[in-house]
Amino acid sequence: MQSFELLSQKFALHFEQPHFPNDPASLYKPNEYFLQLGGKRIRPVLCLMGNELFDEINPDAWHVATAIELFHNFTLIHDDIMDKAPLRRGNETVHAKFGENTALLAGDVMLVAAYNSLNKINTSYIRSIISLFNKTASEVCEGQQLDMDFEKTDTVSLDDYLHMIELKTSVLLAASLKMGSVLGGASQRNQTLLYEFGKKLGIAFQVQDDYLDAFGDPKKFGKQPGGDIKANKKTFLIVQAMCVATDAQKKELKKLMDGNAKDKTEKVLQLFHDCRVNEWALQLKNKYLDEAFAHLEDVAVLSKRKEALQEMAKFLVQREH
Amino acid sequence: MQSFELLSQKFALHFEQPHFPNDPASLYKPNEYFLQLGGKRIRPVLCLMGNELFDEINPDAWHVATAIELFHNFTLIHDDIMDKAPLRRGNETVHAKFGENTALLAGDVMLVAAYNSLNKINTSYIRSIISLFNKTASEVCEGQQLDMDFEKTDTVSLDDYLHMIELKTSVLLAASLKMGSVLGGASQRNQTLLYEFGKKLGIAFQVQDDYLDAFGDPKKFGKQPGGDIKANKKTFLIVQAMCVATDAQKKELKKLMDGNAKDKTEKVLQLFHDCRVNEWALQLKNKYLDEAFAHLEDVAVLSKRKEALQEMAKFLVQREH
Repeated sequence: MQSFELLSQKFALHFEQPHFPNDPASLYKPNEYFLQLGGKRIRPVLCLMGNELFDEINPDAWHVATAIELFHNFTLIHDDIMDKAPLRRGNETVHAKFGENTALLAGDVMLVAAYNSLNKINTSYIRSIISLFNKTASEVCEGQQLDMDFEKTDTVSLDDYLHMIELKTSVLLAASLKMGSVLGGASQRNQTLLYEFGKKLGIAFQVQDDYLDAFGDPKKFGKQPGGDIKANKKTFLIVQAMCVATDAQKKELKKLMDGNAKDKTEKVLQLFHDCRVNEWALQLKNKYLDEAFAHLEDVAVLSKRKEALQEMAKFLVQREH
Repeated sequence: MQSFELLSQKFALHFEQPHFPNDPASLYKPNEYFLQLGGKRIRPVLCLMGNELFDEINPDAWHVATAIELFHNFTLIHDDIMDKAPLRRGNETVHAKFGENTALLAGDVMLVAAYNSLNKINTSYIRSIISLFNKTASEVCEGQQLDMDFEKTDTVSLDDYLHMIELKTSVLLAASLKMGSVLGGASQRNQTLLYEFGKKLGIAFQVQDDYLDAFGDPKKFGKQPGGDIKANKKTFLIVQAMCVATDAQKKELKKLMDGNAKDKTEKVLQLFHDCRVNEWALQLKNKYLDEAFAHLEDVAVLSKRKEALQEMAKFLVQREH
């Protein structure tokens, strides 16, 4: 089993090739621009790791990993349009740089390219891989729609929020691992365990994301915390705060979030502290990480082979940036 | 061989089923709304006809036909966003009714549903069908991008315009026929001939579309002609007029198109008449129809079996609405 870092480097090298023709440049250049912005390539590496857990890496795993990364980038391009986000990874988003219409089409053709990559794998498992890919892709769209629906709702229950995060974030991590395992000849049971591991890990990952955005150390986090608060984004922290706060605190929190006061971030963070939302988030994260590890524990392969996945999971949910 | 009308009725019945789950309704209702607006279902029926040309209809042809129609509707939803079109088939477009963000996502998930339908076919030809589907899907996106690029260009050569129409319109008709023929066990040569038939037919179809929009009989056309002129859309007629007009006429045409005068349509139509663009368009249409028929002629099956396709082709390019 190779480490996350090593596989990440190998995948970056593999993924460096051009993914689109030159012509028309007005359609394909925006996509090449976006892909070269980089990223942690977590999902494709999970696919490779899910594969290597059971056997030497199957050459088809590279095609599936590529499809997953193209799919993920397609969702980012379209999400950025919906969120009207000007920046991604410190650079202009596709729609900001090339216009919304081109970004829409560029995203579409990126999704088609993902299916092109899937279509290269051995036909013996093409149907099961595409089936899981389609299910996951639909769920990610559902998650994004729910996220937008929640923007218009004052309060969201923790259960509903968890369900949304599962769809928007977790299932793609879970499916990446499972697809790798399918190509590695894993049993149905092992496939399911790995999928559940990914799903729980995805939630812990998102809790950490929300936590860092509020309480991260600016020096390590690389930017001023509070971006989600300023953008009025629903996060685990807000959802929980609205759940446990006193009526007076709820009223204040709602007023702060609806407004755009200068000290908004500071005051909301104070309220988070008052409601002990920071401690709660760390507990929630650890709960999901423990559940994830329990599923991984159950996978019927030698413990030694699981170490790389364990390290990767710890890295993802304990990262400070 | 069943007629276009009969297969169209059968497909409409087959396609009536719900294509999406109920939840979340905010994502899936917009798609069900759009699909029930109907349409001529030309492309899926071409797939069925391309299949029946060689054999009894293969059950998989219904899955591919469904995928093609879902794909076509995905392009319409996204094109309507890009064109800021308020109406489609006399009803509100998805983005007008449900918002742009939802329309974007609804289109995305419609494309995924198309692949879901493709994934149901026998694995013996799944790779070749998905390969042609992906190539076509990318080309349709390229065509839409070129169309948008042309909007910003004063003059477009007829060759460039033809190339754009080939991508935006023709290749999907061509691929629909070819996919049907693949499922019918057609030889490579017959597949290619049918593809070329569809490509030429697609151009003739678009010429008729442009012609009707300018010169259609309002009583039969169902709406006041001149929509493309008012919307400043590049059409075969404008492209040809800008090519053959005198310098003075070109100047006037450009001035008219750039402006929004009350008598814009009337004056542009007069210029079209002066440049004999109407006669030219009918000749161009017939040229492509003849070329299409020559390819169909070459397909190595009994002439009798080709009659339904010939009738359909005549109907598509001679329709008055």
